[in-house]
Amino acid sequence: MTVTSETEVFVGVPDTSEGWTDRAREVSNILAADALARDRAGEPPFREVQLLKDSGLVTLLGPIEFGGGGQRWETAYKVVREIARADGSIGQLLGYHYLWAWAARLVGTDPQISAVEELYTSNRFFFGGAVNPRDTDLTVVDRGDTLVFNGVKSFSTGGRVTDLTVLEGIIDGTATHVFAIVPTAQDGIVFRGDWDNLGQRLTDSGSVEVNDVEVDWASAAGFVDKEFQPLVYNTLNFPAIEIVFANFYLGIARGALDTAAEYTRTRTRPWPYGGDNREIATDEWYLREGYGDLQSKLWAAEAFVDQVSREADAVLHDARENLTEQARGDLAVRIAAAKLRAADVSLEISNKIFELTGARATSNDVGLDIYWRNIRTHTLHDPLAYKRREVGSRFLTGEIPEPTWYT
Amino acid sequence: MTVTSETEVFVGVPDTSEGWTDRAREVSNILAADALARDRAGEPPFREVQLLKDSGLVTLLGPIEFGGGGQRWETAYKVVREIARADGSIGQLLGYHYLWAWAARLVGTDPQISAVEELYTSNRFFFGGAVNPRDTDLTVVDRGDTLVFNGVKSFSTGGRVTDLTVLEGIIDGTATHVFAIVPTAQDGIVFRGDWDNLGQRLTDSGSVEVNDVEVDWASAAGFVDKEFQPLVYNTLNFPAIEIVFANFYLGIARGALDTAAEYTRTRTRPWPYGGDNREIATDEWYLREGYGDLQSKLWAAEAFVDQVSREADAVLHDARENLTEQARGDLAVRIAAAKLRAADVSLEISNKIFELTGARATSNDVGLDIYWRNIRTHTLHDPLAYKRREVGSRFLTGEIPEPTWYT
Amino acid sequence: MTVTSETEVFVGVPDTSEGWTDRAREVSNILAADALARDRAGEPPFREVQLLKDSGLVTLLGPIEFGGGGQRWETAYKVVREIARADGSIGQLLGYHYLWAWAARLVGTDPQISAVEELYTSNRFFFGGAVNPRDTDLTVVDRGDTLVFNGVKSFSTGGRVTDLTVLEGIIDGTATHVFAIVPTAQDGIVFRGDWDNLGQRLTDSGSVEVNDVEVDWASAAGFVDKEFQPLVYNTLNFPAIEIVFANFYLGIARGALDTAAEYTRTRTRPWPYGGDNREIATDEWYLREGYGDLQSKLWAAEAFVDQVSREADAVLHDARENLTEQARGDLAVRIAAAKLRAADVSLEISNKIFELTGARATSNDVGLDIYWRNIRTHTLHDPLAYKRREVGSRFLTGEIPEPTWYT
Amino acid sequence: MTVTSETEVFVGVPDTSEGWTDRAREVSNILAADALARDRAGEPPFREVQLLKDSGLVTLLGPIEFGGGGQRWETAYKVVREIARADGSIGQLLGYHYLWAWAARLVGTDPQISAVEELYTSNRFFFGGAVNPRDTDLTVVDRGDTLVFNGVKSFSTGGRVTDLTVLEGIIDGTATHVFAIVPTAQDGIVFRGDWDNLGQRLTDSGSVEVNDVEVDWASAAGFVDKEFQPLVYNTLNFPAIEIVFANFYLGIARGALDTAAEYTRTRTRPWPYGGDNREIATDEWYLREGYGDLQSKLWAAEAFVDQVSREADAVLHDARENLTEQARGDLAVRIAAAKLRAADVSLEISNKIFELTGARATSNDVGLDIYWRNIRTHTLHDPLAYKRREVGSRFLTGEIPEPTWYT
Repeated sequence: MTVTSETEVFVGVPDTSEGWTDRAREVSNILAADALARDRAGEPPFREVQLLKDSGLVTLLGPIEFGGGGQRWETAYKVVREIARADGSIGQLLGYHYLWAWAARLVGTDPQISAVEELYTSNRFFFGGAVNPRDTDLTVVDRGDTLVFNGVKSFSTGGRVTDLTVLEGIIDGTATHVFAIVPTAQDGIVFRGDWDNLGQRLTDSGSVEVNDVEVDWASAAGFVDKEFQPLVYNTLNFPAIEIVFANFYLGIARGALDTAAEYTRTRTRPWPYGGDNREIATDEWYLREGYGDLQSKLWAAEAFVDQVSREADAVLHDARENLTEQARGDLAVRIAAAKLRAADVSLEISNKIFELTGARATSNDVGLDIYWRNIRTHTLHDPLAYKRREVGSRFLTGEIPEPTWYT
Repeated sequence: MTVTSETEVFVGVPDTSEGWTDRAREVSNILAADALARDRAGEPPFREVQLLKDSGLVTLLGPIEFGGGGQRWETAYKVVREIARADGSIGQLLGYHYLWAWAARLVGTDPQISAVEELYTSNRFFFGGAVNPRDTDLTVVDRGDTLVFNGVKSFSTGGRVTDLTVLEGIIDGTATHVFAIVPTAQDGIVFRGDWDNLGQRLTDSGSVEVNDVEVDWASAAGFVDKEFQPLVYNTLNFPAIEIVFANFYLGIARGALDTAAEYTRTRTRPWPYGGDNREIATDEWYLREGYGDLQSKLWAAEAFVDQVSREADAVLHDARENLTEQARGDLAVRIAAAKLRAADVSLEISNKIFELTGARATSNDVGLDIYWRNIRTHTLHDPLAYKRREVGSRFLTGEIPEPTWYT
Repeated sequence: MTVTSETEVFVGVPDTSEGWTDRAREVSNILAADALARDRAGEPPFREVQLLKDSGLVTLLGPIEFGGGGQRWETAYKVVREIARADGSIGQLLGYHYLWAWAARLVGTDPQISAVEELYTSNRFFFGGAVNPRDTDLTVVDRGDTLVFNGVKSFSTGGRVTDLTVLEGIIDGTATHVFAIVPTAQDGIVFRGDWDNLGQRLTDSGSVEVNDVEVDWASAAGFVDKEFQPLVYNTLNFPAIEIVFANFYLGIARGALDTAAEYTRTRTRPWPYGGDNREIATDEWYLREGYGDLQSKLWAAEAFVDQVSREADAVLHDARENLTEQARGDLAVRIAAAKLRAADVSLEISNKIFELTGARATSNDVGLDIYWRNIRTHTLHDPLAYKRREVGSRFLTGEIPEPTWYT
Repeated sequence: MTVTSETEVFVGVPDTSEGWTDRAREVSNILAADALARDRAGEPPFREVQLLKDSGLVTLLGPIEFGGGGQRWETAYKVVREIARADGSIGQLLGYHYLWAWAARLVGTDPQISAVEELYTSNRFFFGGAVNPRDTDLTVVDRGDTLVFNGVKSFSTGGRVTDLTVLEGIIDGTATHVFAIVPTAQDGIVFRGDWDNLGQRLTDSGSVEVNDVEVDWASAAGFVDKEFQPLVYNTLNFPAIEIVFANFYLGIARGALDTAAEYTRTRTRPWPYGGDNREIATDEWYLREGYGDLQSKLWAAEAFVDQVSREADAVLHDARENLTEQARGDLAVRIAAAKLRAADVSLEISNKIFELTGARATSNDVGLDIYWRNIRTHTLHDPLAYKRREVGSRFLTGEIPEPTWYT
């Protein structure tokens, strides 16, 4: 990936959804060229994020008046999927960025929303978060005009390559949660760089220390005069992130299937013993049937995830007070189902492609394992068994999931 | 099913797509009331077809000027699926009827198209076909002004309950195929009533003898002065029937899953040994997870079949000469994939629901087997392995299937 | 099945394990000739049980001194599987008979054991049971010298075609369970003949009323002077019946696979469109691969069930006081696992054979559905999900199942 | 692995099969201690092979008179599986060593057999091979008293860590194949050290150059006076290596399942949202059911592979001239089926364990991916689809596979 020369390619920003997916395809092709090598190197993805900025993709959802694309989420999902086709990590980073950038809309006051959108759009700032809900919350101390955050989170995403970081904590002595967006580059935020996991290696997802990070009360999302405006927080907090997951899973799966097919076309050898003695591998019955099975499954998952993405898009662009508790729950269930299908089919594809390419394709310079490693790692984010249960509970008993970060 | 009283319910015909699917739901509910008993009895579905006529569903696609609904195929697919939810056989019959009624548009001349559409729409006639391509073709003798058909077909669909039958044969001494629509009620057409198979028992699908059935040359579809107008027959003949299959498979699967869930809610007993000692079955973990798994799979198949149904709809309502060979092939492959997903998920659901309802649900008065029998039978129409191969060939090599009745 | 003439074939009884399995094969071949027709007719299996008696199979486990075979359970399991290959119902009946005949050894006193074994062996009596543990127990009233049983059981097996029936109840006003073997033919036992279920149709498995059935205290299994001899009842009561299940499931699966293959060899037509244009179906790649997949899975299940059958055999022929609680639990877990594998593979085979035989094989005169109906019905006996849990609990936590009829 | 100190543990060699599997367990435990670290380092396994020598395992099959164990293959298979439980690479190396050491028995003359067995047993020499049949054969030139081998093989196994290497080539100008065992340490054999693949990383399996390697005619296996003794080569050459594969696959799978379970017991956290709120992970329903499912499948595969291993053992220890063509073919088919089951279940286990341990188990210091990488890599040795076909061909048509290295 030679960012310098490539970025000159990007002239202006697209003004249609199609233009944006074309732009995403350009970026994806640049990323694809050395995705494997970058994964092996495992460096923090500074250049990759710069590419997302240079191409304008980071502000696809941002207001047009500040130089953003003014697009809808439906396009953002497609873009995330397209980027993940080439590089699962960068697809995840971009998807998370879109979410954090949008988070103000879910819990912020109107002035906060405006301020955040102007800030990040006009500067092409990149978002990350240190909000992993399964850790203890950060502690937050009220110092009068400011709030001071302290604590450790075992996972964050984006870490060192972001410009802004979302913090979350509980105000000391209360049960009040507070979110704030802070500049990443400050002494009080220390990323430990300890993400050394099987997949999604370029997401800079390690643990982070938060030491005396001070935030103006004015930046406490949704607070006015130190009081949280109740709004519709609980019902709004639908698992928007999980449909982002589904989209980048399918991007990775599509990358896996296309890459494997290209290998089969050009490098797989037909098997000489006991079959039909084909001269080229693509004439082997089992390879045609095998690819057909996976392609049909991937198409079906894509159609379903597209459908649910449109459902999420409709809610995200509607006024937040219009979302009822029932509608939120039903959408959460649909998203759970979409994630399930995306996870299952991408796991199957990333595992089966080896049988469709052959023994030599296990060479590390081919690197087909990158797809399985990425999918296998991220699909564990929260247990698939619980997603099945959630969908089944709704179907069998009508029960909708309680609003949590996962459901 | 008490047709007499029920049909009074149907006042006029709907004029929106939604109105038609509502109408289909009404019909479906009537059929559901005794679907199992009618399947056990196995009588030719005269009353069922009358219900389809009385409700207006048979002319949903017919021109408005002759009293038809003037709807698009997208609605027809939904209606087929809705009917199949209650009664797989009747869903199949209705789907085949739509196809035969539309067949004139694929191969007929413009005057023939007009004549056929007026005839069947104004009379609410029901179509069947004796065209099974894996049998020897009927022989057709040219008698000057007329053509005379003879032969035997091992399968037809609809048989005795239809008003019009589509015949197909080869003109004696030539390689020329000819199609014609003839009145079903004539001495020369003898349905043997020998359909005694595992499923889809109410489709009256047995063998048929054709003895000296005489047809005016003017009725020979697509012929002008005894010459077939080449048109675009080969490229038009895409497997429109296979996307109909996919739709009624999913209807049957939905019926299966809903029926099973209702049984679980009301009759399944929790298991008392070695688990969590739940008081009601719907609190059993494995039942919630099991239903969630099936529901997510069915949703995904529905989304995909809907998507491909829209693609088929677009082609069917476009001018037939606009369809290129490549586009025809690509659509055939998409349809093959849609049928695969519909077949796989409906087979899985119709088999697995037993594990989610329990031993007593095998009682013949519960009759959950009807779904598996229907799906298991019809998904064998042509080998699923060949569908996988077809999709894989396109994906791997770019090869599109040759136009046949199946591909 | 012409019992009269066939039974003349059976001269004497075998005296080796191999001789017994050969004898079973002869019986199996007789049953296979009209298994489908008998299943369709659904009559109580009087003639079939007579065949089991005439062939000597019913006393395979009986003492040699009374004319029995004196064989071990390992042979009995093989015989059950062989019979089930031809007729799943009769395989089940024979397996249950072996269990009830052996039940005295588990709970009876030494004199009771001797008496029961002499009685049934010398008369070639056939056993059934009305003991379904998920119903309310029968009530038993102590009348001094006798016990009087009353109540209703929703399931029994064998019913009208048995000579002896095992009853179980709780003595009124106590928590004491009591088992007794009684003559089936008495006014107080009324089989309702209401077994009308999907599969295993010839097992005469309906509900039964027990009205004032009187039993000598001396026949109360395991009681001496009205006191139950504690022995080792709890630890002995391992789920011996579940390994019988696994054996007849595999018999049915083997019958299914062999029957399907014979159909494919002789009647399946190769597919003419879009593949390799084979001249015979057995040259189709997908059929060879499909049968290979199922055969390998069945072989594996057979090997495992054989292994666990030997483990059960060792315990059943050892002194009952030698079985520890831990060993009982571990064996129960192994049996649960064996049943799981047998159930899964037989479900898969009985469902998939349709894809390997083709559409015409759904004809009711072919009747391939009998295998799926039998397997689908009986594998619901107790939930497979609980079996998985049981095996997993042992593996993950060391926990062994509490002794119940199922675990 | 601190070989020096450990080897002092091994006193003498066992003299029973059980003693040998105990010995293997000791070695396995030593290997397990740092298997992951050694895999990451990827050094040629000199120390590991030394451990196999020090423990005596390398001569388990060797004649007792020369210090070998005099054991049967049944024990060798168990030992390979036990070693693979801890380290898949070393299990593979040991299994291949046993095969090469035994190869003389398949094609050698009696004096050659004696010489080879004395040589390797008394010296505890370790075997490797450069015989990959899918490469071009080496060329062999007859120089009168000697044969000279030249060429390149793209795969060999064991490479630099072996003492003896098996070469195979075709004598120049003829169609005659010749095998010979040569010292590994010679200038003419150059291992390129280029094995950089996904799994089985410690097998030193790269390409090898053979430059003017000279061999006495007397060492040409099976040749007497330059004439190959026809013997029974074709029928003997059954795929003995494939049942070795099946054994080390199952060893790896067992290692995977046990390691995952230990992680679940000690480190997996219960899921707090939307379920049963268990306090420890091992009480989660889906984890118990998940492990039970995998354990039951692994048990079944183990039982089957054990059974087929015994069948192979019987042939390998029988006089080679006793093996008929039919029996060879039938055994090849059974081995193919055993390998299929071992491959399928080990792929499933090595993939699914992630869902049973959770997101944090993807950390590279946990390293659960080693199992999937090893299994995924080696199960591609030859296509599983062809194994299914082979088993299906035998079942459906009676056809036995032609003798090749794979079938």
